[in-house]
Amino acid sequence: MAAPATPLKATVNCDMGEGFSLYKMGDDEELMKHIHLANIACGFHASDFSIMNSTVSLAKQYGVAAGAHPSLPDLQGFGRREMAVEPDELKSCFIYQVGALSGFLKMHGLPLNHIKPHGAVYGQTSRSLPLARAVVEVAQVFCSEGNRDVAFVGIAGSAHQTAAEELGVKFIPEWFADLDYTPEGKLIITKKHDPVPLETVRDRVMRLLNEKKVTTVEGGFLSLGDNIKEVTICCHSDTPGAVEIAQLVKKLVDESNRSAGYA
Amino acid sequence: MAAPATPLKATVNCDMGEGFSLYKMGDDEELMKHIHLANIACGFHASDFSIMNSTVSLAKQYGVAAGAHPSLPDLQGFGRREMAVEPDELKSCFIYQVGALSGFLKMHGLPLNHIKPHGAVYGQTSRSLPLARAVVEVAQVFCSEGNRDVAFVGIAGSAHQTAAEELGVKFIPEWFADLDYTPEGKLIITKKHDPVPLETVRDRVMRLLNEKKVTTVEGGFLSLGDNIKEVTICCHSDTPGAVEIAQLVKKLVDESNRSAGYA
Amino acid sequence: MAAPATPLKATVNCDMGEGFSLYKMGDDEELMKHIHLANIACGFHASDFSIMNSTVSLAKQYGVAAGAHPSLPDLQGFGRREMAVEPDELKSCFIYQVGALSGFLKMHGLPLNHIKPHGAVYGQTSRSLPLARAVVEVAQVFCSEGNRDVAFVGIAGSAHQTAAEELGVKFIPEWFADLDYTPEGKLIITKKHDPVPLETVRDRVMRLLNEKKVTTVEGGFLSLGDNIKEVTICCHSDTPGAVEIAQLVKKLVDESNRSAGYA
Amino acid sequence: MAAPATPLKATVNCDMGEGFSLYKMGDDEELMKHIHLANIACGFHASDFSIMNSTVSLAKQYGVAAGAHPSLPDLQGFGRREMAVEPDELKSCFIYQVGALSGFLKMHGLPLNHIKPHGAVYGQTSRSLPLARAVVEVAQVFCSEGNRDVAFVGIAGSAHQTAAEELGVKFIPEWFADLDYTPEGKLIITKKHDPVPLETVRDRVMRLLNEKKVTTVEGGFLSLGDNIKEVTICCHSDTPGAVEIAQLVKKLVDESNRSAGYA
Repeated sequence: MAAPATPLKATVNCDMGEGFSLYKMGDDEELMKHIHLANIACGFHASDFSIMNSTVSLAKQYGVAAGAHPSLPDLQGFGRREMAVEPDELKSCFIYQVGALSGFLKMHGLPLNHIKPHGAVYGQTSRSLPLARAVVEVAQVFCSEGNRDVAFVGIAGSAHQTAAEELGVKFIPEWFADLDYTPEGKLIITKKHDPVPLETVRDRVMRLLNEKKVTTVEGGFLSLGDNIKEVTICCHSDTPGAVEIAQLVKKLVDESNRSAGYA
Repeated sequence: MAAPATPLKATVNCDMGEGFSLYKMGDDEELMKHIHLANIACGFHASDFSIMNSTVSLAKQYGVAAGAHPSLPDLQGFGRREMAVEPDELKSCFIYQVGALSGFLKMHGLPLNHIKPHGAVYGQTSRSLPLARAVVEVAQVFCSEGNRDVAFVGIAGSAHQTAAEELGVKFIPEWFADLDYTPEGKLIITKKHDPVPLETVRDRVMRLLNEKKVTTVEGGFLSLGDNIKEVTICCHSDTPGAVEIAQLVKKLVDESNRSAGYA
Repeated sequence: MAAPATPLKATVNCDMGEGFSLYKMGDDEELMKHIHLANIACGFHASDFSIMNSTVSLAKQYGVAAGAHPSLPDLQGFGRREMAVEPDELKSCFIYQVGALSGFLKMHGLPLNHIKPHGAVYGQTSRSLPLARAVVEVAQVFCSEGNRDVAFVGIAGSAHQTAAEELGVKFIPEWFADLDYTPEGKLIITKKHDPVPLETVRDRVMRLLNEKKVTTVEGGFLSLGDNIKEVTICCHSDTPGAVEIAQLVKKLVDESNRSAGYA
Repeated sequence: MAAPATPLKATVNCDMGEGFSLYKMGDDEELMKHIHLANIACGFHASDFSIMNSTVSLAKQYGVAAGAHPSLPDLQGFGRREMAVEPDELKSCFIYQVGALSGFLKMHGLPLNHIKPHGAVYGQTSRSLPLARAVVEVAQVFCSEGNRDVAFVGIAGSAHQTAAEELGVKFIPEWFADLDYTPEGKLIITKKHDPVPLETVRDRVMRLLNEKKVTTVEGGFLSLGDNIKEVTICCHSDTPGAVEIAQLVKKLVDESNRSAGYA
């Protein structure tokens, strides 16, 4: 497929505020400088009310768009264990968490920008359309205020995208800057994130922006359809050199957006 | 003191949605028919996301104004153990809970009507002005949207009232229909709620509405100042005959409000 | 198949101590009079440290053998949602809970009699041999003290039985007095437990004791092998008429045991 | 006061296993090499069943005596917020936690060496004799097995010591190597632990061992009575240079113990 004339509009996102109690996780303050979207933990896999307050405050300070990063109710397992949940139950579970975050956003005068499910339920909702609808409906609920869009961030070509399109919610496919791919384009998911050479990151990002291919639920690449105008690139905060990677990716993305006239 | 020409405007309130998981607490559906204000538990002393959803739905069905009933983070102690908390921490703790409830209200299309702290922190905030300010500021945050008032329900003549007046938040003093008083007007607080004859309840309510005296933090009576236009009467869901008491009190209150031209 | 000369040795078991905080679940005090084995909740699906103390005290008062009823860590879901857990993690999860219960047993001078997994993990461990081994190993750990057997209660012909036999832990198959069966002997599991006529309960129990057939993981009947000398009959505390059912079953079991010379 | 002929018998203790979920706290593996007693978190202020398993395993590997470090039920506050608890409730709370730890000790073949309350409840029990008795009774419960002593670690001259002497439980007073003292001997407690020069640590430890003075509940020094034969020195894992401090203190203590013929 020929590269399109104009690159994809893009942003950099990172999971933020994933400490708990006295515990730290990642260098939020440093990373906040190099991202566009913060996926803010809501207390069910990480974070608590005090940490949410400082995370939202930090997002405001650095002009980062604040989104919710809700999870299954599994603090001890960091939201990484799949659980058998019903769509209704999951919808309420997410309304609770996104609502809690929206309280801090209201206090700090920020709008809710997007919702991205965390961990195990990111996978579960990408494979089950009823579960995907349940969580996309939560984005709808929070759109109702004003005429602002609350986007849903998920996996291209998965139940995420189908549910968002069905329900008329803005969908932003996500792509991973710091994970490896097989020659066939299959994503290699590892428990521990290995260091990635910056040169490799650069090549990948440029190919994504110019060739408009994102990762699918099967781990291959998908050429995006015309209704998708935007992609978001996830940088993990626990990859070695996370800050340097985010810094580089943001620079590439900002340049590409500018050259395409998006900024 | 002579009885004033017009009775106090009044409402009946009850703590609602205080089950958890499979557990029930009180007959919410029956009580919802006989109250004006529901203080809805937010998951920190009782309730969870599924129960909050059905409680808000029930409030909508019966046309009951929905308020938040936030607590210290103490599910195992039902929020009845005092904890050493800082004002900042308590403010975030309440923003989280009221925010979570506001998600369900948004989903069901209801506004947030009021905030009433639960259990131990009701007492702690009535005695400490810094803690009272912290929680009244939460009401301010949720007022910011639209030009709607979010009222603060608390104890007359306590730090609750002082903080609300300082911060310009509507204050509604609360009075208890089903507790006993000494001849000097001191409230007798008991662990287990004893049955109260309906005739006694009737006498008390009529005296309150016509003599404009409410319970203070010391348990005596306070004649309300002119800036207080409204009082709310709390019926406990675990007093024997709770439904009959609420039914009677609501009837008396509705008649009194109508005769004074409030309704 | 002809009825054997001597009936099965049997006991009646019931899940006990499943309240939490101020919440009640079932009439523990009344049921404790009509059972032989109490499966005591350990705080992960129900119960807390105060309730565990009173439940163990009640078991002692009525001479009931005390066992542990550990669960997945899912208080809000009452342990009824399956979760993806690794064997190691589950073993630690159960060691924690059974250890906690053993503290109360030590305080009240009772031995640990048995372990029966609760809810979703009862099913998960019955189908997965690695998970079954993990939880049967917990019974082994608590056997090490003195030369007392700690039995494992589970489903006949399932991974429960296989793991127990592999690891040399006493296995007691369980059978349900208050559930219905298809004509083919398949167990009908319902969310809400329906009333069962006492006459039906009587017939079922007598057939079990005299024909030595118990429910299998597929819900059919299994004629027990010679190595199984004992069966335990579960009465649910939330079936209508639970106390009357338990009373009847215990009477039948006690008579049968006596006539066979077991008591 | 003249230095006694023989130094105090002493040990080094450190709070261990205070991570949670994916979160780390302190360098347990490195510190375990330089201490005699590990105070192992039991899941109520920190730790969980998986971390407890690895912490007990680590204690075994390094031959460190394993004790319980139970807390108020306050994971989000790291057990550092005082809570209003009744003695009975606190006793059950500690039985649960120490019991849970004892499960892991049984699995790894280690005895329970001691109990030291954590954080806010360390202070609360040092000031209230009813609360102190409640937690010392927990040590008694776990002594009952075999004829082994389970010691109680606490503050000299406080309710800790009174309750332990009343109930016949071995009491070990604790002293802090890495906190500062006023010229009058008053302990200076800080939120963040500042670095301490190793030379200062050395001087303090030698004075303690040779002059037999430990910190009291008021923060002054107390010359120990003849019934106290042993003291334990606490090194905080979050003081800068924690490992070097522990290493030095252990060296001094081991030399002193050897020279006095204790080892």
